[in-house]
Amino acid sequence: MKFEETTIKAFIDELASNSPAPGGGSVAALCGSLAAGLEAMVANLTLGKEKYRTSWDKMHKVLEEGEKLRAEFISLMNEDTESFNLFMQALKMPKETEEQKASRKAAMGEASKAATAVPLRTLESCVKAAELSFTAAKYGNSNAVSDAGVAALLAEAAGKAASYNVKINLPGIADEAFAKECRERMEKALAEVVKHADETAKLVEAAMI
Amino acid sequence: MKFEETTIKAFIDELASNSPAPGGGSVAALCGSLAAGLEAMVANLTLGKEKYRTSWDKMHKVLEEGEKLRAEFISLMNEDTESFNLFMQALKMPKETEEQKASRKAAMGEASKAATAVPLRTLESCVKAAELSFTAAKYGNSNAVSDAGVAALLAEAAGKAASYNVKINLPGIADEAFAKECRERMEKALAEVVKHADETAKLVEAAMI
Repeated sequence: MKFEETTIKAFIDELASNSPAPGGGSVAALCGSLAAGLEAMVANLTLGKEKYRTSWDKMHKVLEEGEKLRAEFISLMNEDTESFNLFMQALKMPKETEEQKASRKAAMGEASKAATAVPLRTLESCVKAAELSFTAAKYGNSNAVSDAGVAALLAEAAGKAASYNVKINLPGIADEAFAKECRERMEKALAEVVKHADETAKLVEAAMI
Repeated sequence: MKFEETTIKAFIDELASNSPAPGGGSVAALCGSLAAGLEAMVANLTLGKEKYRTSWDKMHKVLEEGEKLRAEFISLMNEDTESFNLFMQALKMPKETEEQKASRKAAMGEASKAATAVPLRTLESCVKAAELSFTAAKYGNSNAVSDAGVAALLAEAAGKAASYNVKINLPGIADEAFAKECRERMEKALAEVVKHADETAKLVEAAMI
């Protein structure tokens, strides 16, 4: 099942149920896609308006990158739940013989890596979404400045949410070099998303006084 | 059209389009409903587990209030777009005679009030969502602590997003007493949502070290 083809109600029903997936990881990616959608909207509300002619080039870029990001986030929303389900499958593998134990451990290790790599990609995409929100707030239609601001808030929340999902999976990874690389990429991306989102929030709040 | 009955893809397509509604206000309410859905999930993953027997009463409350909140946010997601559309209709009213001008002005004033009151209610519901996230993080199944943390991040982002939508509509309100009351309620709720979300984030981050 692809989540983007379900209704909003069905998705939240599934979220609220007593099954752990979809959970925070898929929701983080969904919020990223909402941020990208808002950025595309600001671009669409700016393009073609004479008053903003000098912003059109920038808005074409926001629209193009926003639409790419949106598709990426939608894919990540599905991948996050799939990687969780793979982990649960590995957990249920037989563990009676030594051979079975080794296979199960290897499968769980691989699944943990995937369950960490997916939210890390979500977080890194949130950096791009936060960057786009700044361009949308600074150069976009001023009637939509609060929408660019909402995009920044969502990119930041989605990025932090994705970082929780990286962190919670790191202890299950035996490959120390992989874990170290993930942690470093996570910290770098988290700092960047907060920086860009803060810059956008400042612009937006100044515009609304 | 009710947004909860559309697919996620169709909603984001509509969001990204060159129509200003749905925009940040409806997205804020949607994020609130995702927070409430995650809180219900944490409660459902805790109820019935012997290990958490002492938390069951609290989790029944989280589940019940989370489900109520979710329905409220879904309604607010629709109301936000409806109130924007009412404002656009008022804006298009004829303004040739003095009588028409007065009718149009009155209709725009009423629509501005609705467009402010709806995100204010979203923001106040986010305070409740942020409070529930704390209970879910503190007393819920520890395997789902990151999900309670994501709920707090979303409640905070949705609350701030809703506050942008209150602020951007305040200047259009001629009724000064109403505007003053809205601003005061907004500031109070915003401070509360940030406080509760920060408390949850601290708990969650301490649990994931």
